[in-house]
Amino acid sequence: MRTTIKLAVIGYGNVGRGVMKAIDKNDDMELACILSRSPDRVKKELGANVPVFAADDFEALKKADVAILCGGSKDDLPVQGPFYAKHINTIDSYDNHSQALAYFTSMDETARNAGTVACVSIGWDPGTFSLERVLGNAFMPGAKTYGFYGTGPRGGLSMGHSDAIRQVEGVQDARQYTHAIPEAIEQVRSGENPELKPGDMHWRECFVVAKDGANTGAIENEIKNMSGYFAPYKTVVHFVSQEELDAKYAGFPHDGLVIGSGTTGDGNKALVEYRNTWDSNPEATANILVAHARAATRLAADGKSGAFTILDIPPAYLSPHSREELIGSFL
Amino acid sequence: MRTTIKLAVIGYGNVGRGVMKAIDKNDDMELACILSRSPDRVKKELGANVPVFAADDFEALKKADVAILCGGSKDDLPVQGPFYAKHINTIDSYDNHSQALAYFTSMDETARNAGTVACVSIGWDPGTFSLERVLGNAFMPGAKTYGFYGTGPRGGLSMGHSDAIRQVEGVQDARQYTHAIPEAIEQVRSGENPELKPGDMHWRECFVVAKDGANTGAIENEIKNMSGYFAPYKTVVHFVSQEELDAKYAGFPHDGLVIGSGTTGDGNKALVEYRNTWDSNPEATANILVAHARAATRLAADGKSGAFTILDIPPAYLSPHSREELIGSFL
Repeated sequence: MRTTIKLAVIGYGNVGRGVMKAIDKNDDMELACILSRSPDRVKKELGANVPVFAADDFEALKKADVAILCGGSKDDLPVQGPFYAKHINTIDSYDNHSQALAYFTSMDETARNAGTVACVSIGWDPGTFSLERVLGNAFMPGAKTYGFYGTGPRGGLSMGHSDAIRQVEGVQDARQYTHAIPEAIEQVRSGENPELKPGDMHWRECFVVAKDGANTGAIENEIKNMSGYFAPYKTVVHFVSQEELDAKYAGFPHDGLVIGSGTTGDGNKALVEYRNTWDSNPEATANILVAHARAATRLAADGKSGAFTILDIPPAYLSPHSREELIGSFL
Repeated sequence: MRTTIKLAVIGYGNVGRGVMKAIDKNDDMELACILSRSPDRVKKELGANVPVFAADDFEALKKADVAILCGGSKDDLPVQGPFYAKHINTIDSYDNHSQALAYFTSMDETARNAGTVACVSIGWDPGTFSLERVLGNAFMPGAKTYGFYGTGPRGGLSMGHSDAIRQVEGVQDARQYTHAIPEAIEQVRSGENPELKPGDMHWRECFVVAKDGANTGAIENEIKNMSGYFAPYKTVVHFVSQEELDAKYAGFPHDGLVIGSGTTGDGNKALVEYRNTWDSNPEATANILVAHARAATRLAADGKSGAFTILDIPPAYLSPHSREELIGSFL
């Protein structure tokens, strides 16, 4: 009989809920505990049988092999990451690309000192998309890889941009969908390795609920000119009722496409594409995090410690299957 | 200054030629020698400045760090693999899926005893496609992944099937293109996890040059009923002139698509697709082999020995870039 991997879920939001469902689908995984800054809220949602504790309950944490850190990259993980990595193997989805090296370095030092394994920046981007970017570059020297998001008709829901719109005066609620620009995808596929600015690759569609009596012209203007978030992009704003927003734009769909286009030999064309389409972005991230708990326990069993990205992990370590099964059925 | 990795190219056919071109494109790679069973033929093709030696010239091999074994899986690699792995780190593209575990086991034992690293079954299938099958299964528990080949309009050239047609009496030359069946791809995308037989997924198109006076009806009949190769598939045979075959059906194009379709949480759809399109299949394989030479030298530097598939190698080991570059520019 295989022993199970005991997981601590740290933080109970959309990703934490996804981790709970992922544990059910993976026979080798088991919930040890949930740690939350609002344990009463979580207990109320999940009932008395689920082991929920305060965020700093290190006694509860001792029952777990790996902690899945489900907080956000902006405020939660820079604090939570080192806090938990001192005590236990951790998996997180730190996704601020510009700060990723600093975060990796901090987690690496903490985890090495503690003798733990910290899998950082795990998910689909960063995560599987990073992997495809590295493989594309290694197998087609000189080829650039590009990431597109919202390639399907519905586009991809951006939580960060939705939150930014909700900060605008007069806005009651909002959802922002990112759309890839098909002509840019074709340009990359053609092998030109084009220089593309953000606004060449994507446009942004906003569904906004205005408060009663708000100035919709002013709201639209403020959204479209928000620097960093919307100013570089073609942006379309639709005003809708709260009922319409809730009915038509619920859920967390997202999708993405990595394309690398280059050559082999004396100019023979080579094209690699990787596409993810998720009805639930947070559940997708949760599933990938849980698979990395397997890798963390194996790296720890190898005597390793420190920080690891998906690039540092033998892929077989993510799988529940034995080497014989992998070679026999998957190779 | 970075030291270069010195490669021995073992066997000089289509893949060997591709390896030579790939070495030119990778600044950290250098040719040490070519070993061939027909060194005179290779010297004649490449000129006197290229270091070409007989297949068993182990003195020449000593100048190399890694040997890229460019032979075929049927007759060459089962002998060449253990023969060279006794002396040097090796990379091969062994692609007989049904015998892959036996080959791995044999190479693992040889390489462990010799203290060498043997990267086996490297390429795109097995290879990157194997990787995607394992990741799809790990991230979407219960999802099956499917491989389709020849998804574009031209289809993918199958060397093995072309060779099989050339064995038929009355056939002067032939090329066989595999085509994916679009309806099967859509069925997989829909998430049904269908049970698909080989003939449900692909059909085969043959361009055949008949010898003067040959019975084309008999040729067509024999091809279509060839067990294993063509009998399970819808097969279309076109008779063409040698000139037309040479003009229109030269080159080695191939492409493939891995699809995994499953769910996250309580039934939210999840879809992962990975597609390769290569104008030159042997050059694509060569590029992937050469990147694995990097991994082999790093595994050896870690003190590792034995056989490794792509599933056993941290992806960063395939890249020429440092950890800082990878996290800064690719993560």
